Amino acid sequence: MTFQTGRVEKDFLGEKEVPGNAYYGIQTIRATENFPITKERMHPELIRAIGIVKRAAAISNVLVNDLPKDIGLAIVEASDEVIAGTLTDQFIVDPIQGGAGTSFNMNANEVIANRALEIMGREKGDYDYISPNNHINMSQSTNDAFPTAIKIATQQLVNQLLETMDKFAAELKMKEQEFDGVIKMGRTHLQDAVPIRLGQEFSAYRSVIERDIERIGRTRIHLSEINMGATAIGTGLNANAQYIETAVEHLREISGLPLESAANLIDSTQNTDVYTELSSALKICMINLSKMANDLRLMASGPRAGLNEINLPARQPGSSIMPGKVNPVMAEVMNQIAFQVIGNDHTISLASEAGQFELNVMEPVLVYNLLQSLTVMNNGIEVFRKYCISGITANVEQMQNYVERSLGTITALTPYIGYEMSSKIARESFETGVPLKELCLHYNVLTADELNKLLDPYQMTEMKREGVVHS
Amino acid sequence: MTFQTGRVEKDFLGEKEVPGNAYYGIQTIRATENFPITKERMHPELIRAIGIVKRAAAISNVLVNDLPKDIGLAIVEASDEVIAGTLTDQFIVDPIQGGAGTSFNMNANEVIANRALEIMGREKGDYDYISPNNHINMSQSTNDAFPTAIKIATQQLVNQLLETMDKFAAELKMKEQEFDGVIKMGRTHLQDAVPIRLGQEFSAYRSVIERDIERIGRTRIHLSEINMGATAIGTGLNANAQYIETAVEHLREISGLPLESAANLIDSTQNTDVYTELSSALKICMINLSKMANDLRLMASGPRAGLNEINLPARQPGSSIMPGKVNPVMAEVMNQIAFQVIGNDHTISLASEAGQFELNVMEPVLVYNLLQSLTVMNNGIEVFRKYCISGITANVEQMQNYVERSLGTITALTPYIGYEMSSKIARESFETGVPLKELCLHYNVLTADELNKLLDPYQMTEMKREGVVHS
Amino acid sequence: MTFQTGRVEKDFLGEKEVPGNAYYGIQTIRATENFPITKERMHPELIRAIGIVKRAAAISNVLVNDLPKDIGLAIVEASDEVIAGTLTDQFIVDPIQGGAGTSFNMNANEVIANRALEIMGREKGDYDYISPNNHINMSQSTNDAFPTAIKIATQQLVNQLLETMDKFAAELKMKEQEFDGVIKMGRTHLQDAVPIRLGQEFSAYRSVIERDIERIGRTRIHLSEINMGATAIGTGLNANAQYIETAVEHLREISGLPLESAANLIDSTQNTDVYTELSSALKICMINLSKMANDLRLMASGPRAGLNEINLPARQPGSSIMPGKVNPVMAEVMNQIAFQVIGNDHTISLASEAGQFELNVMEPVLVYNLLQSLTVMNNGIEVFRKYCISGITANVEQMQNYVERSLGTITALTPYIGYEMSSKIARESFETGVPLKELCLHYNVLTADELNKLLDPYQMTEMKREGVVHS
Amino acid sequence: MTFQTGRVEKDFLGEKEVPGNAYYGIQTIRATENFPITKERMHPELIRAIGIVKRAAAISNVLVNDLPKDIGLAIVEASDEVIAGTLTDQFIVDPIQGGAGTSFNMNANEVIANRALEIMGREKGDYDYISPNNHINMSQSTNDAFPTAIKIATQQLVNQLLETMDKFAAELKMKEQEFDGVIKMGRTHLQDAVPIRLGQEFSAYRSVIERDIERIGRTRIHLSEINMGATAIGTGLNANAQYIETAVEHLREISGLPLESAANLIDSTQNTDVYTELSSALKICMINLSKMANDLRLMASGPRAGLNEINLPARQPGSSIMPGKVNPVMAEVMNQIAFQVIGNDHTISLASEAGQFELNVMEPVLVYNLLQSLTVMNNGIEVFRKYCISGITANVEQMQNYVERSLGTITALTPYIGYEMSSKIARESFETGVPLKELCLHYNVLTADELNKLLDPYQMTEMKREGVVHS
Repeated sequence: MTFQTGRVEKDFLGEKEVPGNAYYGIQTIRATENFPITKERMHPELIRAIGIVKRAAAISNVLVNDLPKDIGLAIVEASDEVIAGTLTDQFIVDPIQGGAGTSFNMNANEVIANRALEIMGREKGDYDYISPNNHINMSQSTNDAFPTAIKIATQQLVNQLLETMDKFAAELKMKEQEFDGVIKMGRTHLQDAVPIRLGQEFSAYRSVIERDIERIGRTRIHLSEINMGATAIGTGLNANAQYIETAVEHLREISGLPLESAANLIDSTQNTDVYTELSSALKICMINLSKMANDLRLMASGPRAGLNEINLPARQPGSSIMPGKVNPVMAEVMNQIAFQVIGNDHTISLASEAGQFELNVMEPVLVYNLLQSLTVMNNGIEVFRKYCISGITANVEQMQNYVERSLGTITALTPYIGYEMSSKIARESFETGVPLKELCLHYNVLTADELNKLLDPYQMTEMKREGVVHS
Repeated sequence: MTFQTGRVEKDFLGEKEVPGNAYYGIQTIRATENFPITKERMHPELIRAIGIVKRAAAISNVLVNDLPKDIGLAIVEASDEVIAGTLTDQFIVDPIQGGAGTSFNMNANEVIANRALEIMGREKGDYDYISPNNHINMSQSTNDAFPTAIKIATQQLVNQLLETMDKFAAELKMKEQEFDGVIKMGRTHLQDAVPIRLGQEFSAYRSVIERDIERIGRTRIHLSEINMGATAIGTGLNANAQYIETAVEHLREISGLPLESAANLIDSTQNTDVYTELSSALKICMINLSKMANDLRLMASGPRAGLNEINLPARQPGSSIMPGKVNPVMAEVMNQIAFQVIGNDHTISLASEAGQFELNVMEPVLVYNLLQSLTVMNNGIEVFRKYCISGITANVEQMQNYVERSLGTITALTPYIGYEMSSKIARESFETGVPLKELCLHYNVLTADELNKLLDPYQMTEMKREGVVHS
Repeated sequence: MTFQTGRVEKDFLGEKEVPGNAYYGIQTIRATENFPITKERMHPELIRAIGIVKRAAAISNVLVNDLPKDIGLAIVEASDEVIAGTLTDQFIVDPIQGGAGTSFNMNANEVIANRALEIMGREKGDYDYISPNNHINMSQSTNDAFPTAIKIATQQLVNQLLETMDKFAAELKMKEQEFDGVIKMGRTHLQDAVPIRLGQEFSAYRSVIERDIERIGRTRIHLSEINMGATAIGTGLNANAQYIETAVEHLREISGLPLESAANLIDSTQNTDVYTELSSALKICMINLSKMANDLRLMASGPRAGLNEINLPARQPGSSIMPGKVNPVMAEVMNQIAFQVIGNDHTISLASEAGQFELNVMEPVLVYNLLQSLTVMNNGIEVFRKYCISGITANVEQMQNYVERSLGTITALTPYIGYEMSSKIARESFETGVPLKELCLHYNVLTADELNKLLDPYQMTEMKREGVVHS
Repeated sequence: MTFQTGRVEKDFLGEKEVPGNAYYGIQTIRATENFPITKERMHPELIRAIGIVKRAAAISNVLVNDLPKDIGLAIVEASDEVIAGTLTDQFIVDPIQGGAGTSFNMNANEVIANRALEIMGREKGDYDYISPNNHINMSQSTNDAFPTAIKIATQQLVNQLLETMDKFAAELKMKEQEFDGVIKMGRTHLQDAVPIRLGQEFSAYRSVIERDIERIGRTRIHLSEINMGATAIGTGLNANAQYIETAVEHLREISGLPLESAANLIDSTQNTDVYTELSSALKICMINLSKMANDLRLMASGPRAGLNEINLPARQPGSSIMPGKVNPVMAEVMNQIAFQVIGNDHTISLASEAGQFELNVMEPVLVYNLLQSLTVMNNGIEVFRKYCISGITANVEQMQNYVERSLGTITALTPYIGYEMSSKIARESFETGVPLKELCLHYNVLTADELNKLLDPYQMTEMKREGVVHS
């Protein structure tokens, strides 16, 4: 980029010097001065989405004859560059910003205006010709353009995430099958319960993840109800019905998403519950994944002083001081992502509650957290699948030993000898170390044949098809 | 109740004296000793639900010939008393209890066993004849009986809540119509924006509440998937397929709820995401209601030094020191219920994340919070409707004045005179106090006729059916 | 209580029938109609504290000659009954109430007024003689009386809690000494690390609890800064300096707490950060206790298919279906209390953030949660100490075995043979099962004598007093 | 940087190609493969702090004769570059990482090792000469090096924050004085209460911020207790007492912070409550600031249809569609920072609770959030002071009008005419619009002179020095 002398821009609050080669303008600069908060940038998917919004608005404004065609085409071209990502470095406002997204929207309006001016062979800053407010923002307000962009960006990321989760569920399914024959002790309260198969545990993991997929997927219904055309407060002031219809149609086409105009644009402009709904679904998913990660870390504990039931792939030396140590780092990172997403949900809830009258001005921090949740989940689940789940192996013998030494299998005898006698035998076995079967024979409660049948652990893991005969 | 000498009961840990007239037994007493935590009692709806579970189990056990008919009938009769609430005082265990609900389940088992014994003309404590574990708990574990009861209780409360919310939405609808003609200033950022109608604001409140109703209602799908028959860990050990089918059928019949056996009983036994899903939906609803309460409190602020746009019904003297003061107490209590429900959701999420292997032992604190959320919401929304929403009146003149003095209406001119000229005029009017219309005429940007038409506030609140002609 | 015909009371909003034997009056009844939210009652400690506040105010009003002595003495006597708890059943307002505590304050004003009237031989309801607002509430507002009561109640409960925690820390100290000689594997990432002594683990538990005691205790400094005399908004309108001084002195005397008048009464009336500070300290303590409970549950996991390093006292049969099963219920209830307290902290934070201008009207829900946190912690820690910690026993042999089989002890060789060689030996031992010592001799990296010295696990747990010689 | 051929490095899990000019090595690369989570980098202050830790360790290892002097000096030089920030681009691991910080610690060990090798004229990767594990990490574990770095980094940021907050409090103090004479209506429940002075409101803001400064500052006590020398689990294995003493002394010197060796290194290695303590203090501060921001936004609401009591500096055009609109963006960003910090506190609490046995492996996500909280608060408070607080102006006349029209001043008459008569007059004035004073004269309750004196609003804001005479 060659050096260009700075230009001076003005708005109703005064003037500012803008770097000559910058596509952004005075309002963007004001925003960077006001909000040096995180020093991060807006999420690339959101930048892409605002490009989509601006493109659709321009086309619609041309079609309803509010915008001259040549200017409209230049705006479309500039918007396409935003969508393609080639102008991403021009989006310099902080994700945590006052003003309900106006700074981000104006950043987009300025970048597209100046790029469109350039395309038309004009000087940057020649806002009499193409104005960020009058042309790029035509028929729009931040209050409809920004939420529409949020809904596009979140849906794109949700779709990505669902793909990642589908692969994840499929991986769990494979493990479910691989481990179907592996008997182990089920545990409740971290205490030995009754036998289960490792494959059954993975089936539960898969099953809950499938419910998460459904739950997250379902949030797309409300996320598809956009308020494009609502303008400032949902009354559609300065937009007209034909523009709105055209704009939504173009948005649907450009984005490939099933977008619809919300039935109540005032509601849709002021309420943010659809984001909280998505965030809740993400939170619930991460709670489930955190539980799963905890189970895996427990099963993989050891190698000598732990349960040592499974092995997680060794991904990196685990300790800077303890040689040969390997830690369950991929599971640990899932726990951490869970904590991040749960904390983000909290921030999102707080922001959502803080709406007032016709608008929720806290949307920037809300969307900052929401997009981060989507991103870290997508990234995390993918590596968790690849580097952890897919390589899990079972220590079949160790699990078998636990089952054989366990007292929990006594449960299978209760229908025949009663809870009290079973308890007595279990406690005696626990205290003396004499095996359950031996004690049962000693007390003459069942025959050796009956015991062999009833105490078969694999049988215990199968739902009974025929009746159990209670004594 | 006449005095009865205490009886001695025993379990595998030893003996305890039980009050003679108590229907509960030794394990209940152990639980009260171990968990004097909140000093509260279990939710009555949950007690009712465990009665339903025990009744269904007894019937099914009789039908599959595991339980003698006479004992079964006595259990049914005792369970019916639990359902009717006449034995509620016998449920003395603390809602926050270790042990994943075993204490509550045993409290139910003991109460029903002893009452059934009494019905059959036996002594309380004669567990050789009817045993809490062998007979009342037959084919069950706490780990399926308790979650099934939770799902029944929560659904009953959800259904109640939805009725209350339907009435609430209808009330909002009436206000929406009543206030349809009332023009007021819309506000974004608490700053004057463009005109809106008070009825439109209420339409947004109604609209978001309808989404909440849908969202809360939808959680009943997963709440209907019960794990009855899963027993200890979901493998169904000691239950049989026919029993499960019969039990679920009876549960459906007794409860009137569309209960189904979960497709994966292991998943259904260990994961608690369906409660978190409900809690999230409740949280989102309360976020929306808190925002609504805040709006109403702002609009009702005054009477002299506030916005004073609406009047909330005077429900009680507002101050012990300031005479004549009336406060928006019904709106304030909605905010507080919101904070309670959001905090409860947090506890629920933490409990949900703490599941390990085949069970989540933190269910007691989870359900304690979930049932409280449902209860305080139901109670709160009902009084909010009756004592606040229904009696709201509008200060039409005050709102009219705000619109007339406002600068926000300049927005309607932007398509004709551009954002820059509009800004200039708005700022000048703000600084000098000269009305917008006068300045427009002064600058000769539009004719008086055009201005009268464009600056009509009511027009600004109507979505345009025809095109706006941009200059 | 004999039956009395109801009386009719009135306030500026109208009339209400009051039960004849009720000490509460019209405003209390209004409050119960408005707020049937939790259906619970105010915390007894808070009722006691409001009695203390009313007593101190009455005495001070007499001393500054604002209140006739005979009326003052009757108020003191009635207040003493509130403090003693004999009028507790007259406090019928819901803990979650709109109105910043006015309903609770008026409940107290009415109860004391009517009881004082009775003491003076007058009819209940004779408010011309003794008025809830003019006499009982003299020189006060809810906005100073209620926060002052909150600070008294919380401090009383904090002091109780600290006593309970001191005993808890002492119990941990005893276990620290009892287990000082018990060697076990230290674990990081749930993976075998290097040896530690069980006593050292308990020393860490004690150490963090001592920090919690300090942290919780410290919050009493700000909790002692009361706003008595601030009246409505902190300007002290209708109170005078002499009254304030006297009132605070009497409060200090009656309560036995080191109360002081806050330096800035306006700040003290509107901000609730001192409660959030206490709640945060409670939250942190419960986070630490939850971690401790988790450790204990892990160490006690088994008895056959878990770590089985320690035994927790058997407090109750653990399962309604699995005979002989005993679960770590006392540890589990600590986790649940942690979740409750963390959720409560969330509610408290939300309420605290919702203050506006001169008051935080959300105090009722805030104090409801804060007092619950204090109560369940006090109750829970006491039983955790008595029924869990004190009875823990160690499975010394099991822990010894883990240490002997472990690979983590290789760490002690690193300074002598380097991280790479150590890693190689550790991995080879892991894969082949050949003991570390044997491999070291095989690779000739250290002599048998050196190995015996360096691999002594007890030595590894002692901080070196002399230098380690690195190779 | 000139192109260099890649080198191959190996660890006990295998080999990896490392870019030739990279200072990081194989373990860093493994970490980037495993954790592409946020795609962000570690906080620069934390990188600086790990440089300080490595420098102090090297010096101490030389002094206790464990490390050859020449190697030690090269390490010191390389560490100084890390401290100076010139190697920051070499720290490429993700802030959310599994493994309790091992990846970050190894990133530092590798960067310093390779840079030290280069300084000594050796090839990068020549780990036989200088090894990341044996030399840079000598006498350390991630488990003491990382927490020590966290404590240094957080304290540095806390100190910065406190400076920013001191300036903020001083600014509030100036406003307190500037607005001392400005009378306005105090508000409780958003309803008119009794008069206050704007300066008094700012005094309350200053007062609570001073308490926040104290609260945040106090957390430095525990943050100064470091576990350097604790190595893997707090037993100090492979470190010796002299090294520890020397290391802490050097850390104190290099950092300028009052660091001390923790009394119980095992506690200090496994518990993270001191971070949660800091995060809680930050949260409480942001709750207070959010309340303050809300007050300011309310007071500045308008300009025509709001309270319009104060003016916030116009920092940027507020709307892309509404011309001339200016929004309270600096206050809004404070609310958003509050939500972020409160959400972060939630994540931190979750991470803190997840410690197990000798370590909390969730520290990376904890510290990621903690450092972000400190950073956004510091950045936000500074611009809030500069761009908002310092430029606030008062609309004195508007506030005066509110006071004059208000009914709340009746409160001052209560001690003389009673609560009931006052209520009657207040309600009548509210309903009829007749001024209070006029009604008082009409009912002949006080003389005009008395009324003039008692109804002087300024007097009402001053704490009475002499007694109020009650009727």
